[in-house]
Amino acid sequence: MHCELECETERIEEMIRHALWSSGGKGVVVGVSGGVDSAVATALCTGALGKERVKGLLLPASVSKAEDIRDAEKFCAHLDIEYTLITIQPILDTYRKIPGFVKDLVLEGNLLARIRMALLYYHANRENRLVCGTSNRSEYLLGYCTKYGDNAADLQPILHLFKTEVYELASHLGIPSAILSKSPSAGFWADQTDEGELGLRYTEIDQALQRLERTGWAASTVVEEQVLRLVEKSRHKRSPPLSLLPSS
Amino acid sequence: MHCELECETERIEEMIRHALWSSGGKGVVVGVSGGVDSAVATALCTGALGKERVKGLLLPASVSKAEDIRDAEKFCAHLDIEYTLITIQPILDTYRKIPGFVKDLVLEGNLLARIRMALLYYHANRENRLVCGTSNRSEYLLGYCTKYGDNAADLQPILHLFKTEVYELASHLGIPSAILSKSPSAGFWADQTDEGELGLRYTEIDQALQRLERTGWAASTVVEEQVLRLVEKSRHKRSPPLSLLPSS
Repeated sequence: MHCELECETERIEEMIRHALWSSGGKGVVVGVSGGVDSAVATALCTGALGKERVKGLLLPASVSKAEDIRDAEKFCAHLDIEYTLITIQPILDTYRKIPGFVKDLVLEGNLLARIRMALLYYHANRENRLVCGTSNRSEYLLGYCTKYGDNAADLQPILHLFKTEVYELASHLGIPSAILSKSPSAGFWADQTDEGELGLRYTEIDQALQRLERTGWAASTVVEEQVLRLVEKSRHKRSPPLSLLPSS
Repeated sequence: MHCELECETERIEEMIRHALWSSGGKGVVVGVSGGVDSAVATALCTGALGKERVKGLLLPASVSKAEDIRDAEKFCAHLDIEYTLITIQPILDTYRKIPGFVKDLVLEGNLLARIRMALLYYHANRENRLVCGTSNRSEYLLGYCTKYGDNAADLQPILHLFKTEVYELASHLGIPSAILSKSPSAGFWADQTDEGELGLRYTEIDQALQRLERTGWAASTVVEEQVLRLVEKSRHKRSPPLSLLPSS
């Protein structure tokens, strides 16, 4: 983190205000999942812009947990921001009817992320708002995200924070313990957890990423090698499309 | 254009091969609309990789013209590549049922572009292919595209070519006259044409863009001022999300 928690909060809120004011937009729309990343991003937007300029979208599918939806609703009510709950299962079900559709949890998870992106932008475009993303630095560097799905936004206020730092900031911001205490999950299927799927704990991942960044991406442990492979494999998710455009 | 038409063709095809081989993918998937951009991109992919590695997706909605669908099908058959036709209207209709949906041609057009992106990636992910985009430099610079929609891809083989250059290359590649002779259209609604909506002809736009690039974006005519305003307003579409990430 760049500075102490309160100073970091102010630094991020200033960035959010700059992003909105330079765009001429009237506010932001954020996807609120009931997890810690979206809670922190939403709280920061509310602190930066005031509750009238922040709108939450709750976009659960059948695989989403009732507890997460409830936590997301409670959190929006706690911040006193406007929010809308839209079940996206009917949209996923229509995609399921396309010829050649196969049952595959990862393919469906990616579709869910892209459906959510399309709905966030639909609301943003309709109301002249920006889409606020909720990606953190750990998942961004590992590529643990859907390209043009959850990593697609106009601003990303917590992208520079490792997951463990997001938790620190969350405590500082007073995010409710119901949200802080659950295992991080992309929510692609019922019992998915990030750490289970990645086979590593975020404390290990963040320590490895921070050491790799400091050493110019030279891995010196088994965990660092494993993390580095994920970073390399996902480079395309952090890059613009390959082209022959002069400056790209 | 960097060099003569045949040399330019080879230069692009080399880029396409490099993109695929460095990714470890088995081929590409391209959205084929019946327009000139996607015809040129698909022909270049076929030349670069061989017809077995190229798959066309035809993704019309109700607003799409029968003539465009027919031209797209004929063109895939002409290249002898595998292609699939999927009508995306049922998916759009499900989005239409979300609370707060309003009838607005631009909002719906953006949804169509994002539905197409999600389907292209669905097929690409399922078959270990890359998504080949079909954006050109004129629309990219003007921002005449849907963010995270048609501008979202893994590679963009004609992104460095102005629209007028795409036509030159299209003639060189022997793209059928039925495709060459129609007015460019984003296909958001029935009688939409790019030039009608932009209020400028592509010959004027490209001349203005080329002059602006040469002069460091200093506008000296009314057309150049008009074009420059579009370029500036759409900067966010060509940039990664705003964040505090060190390198961004």
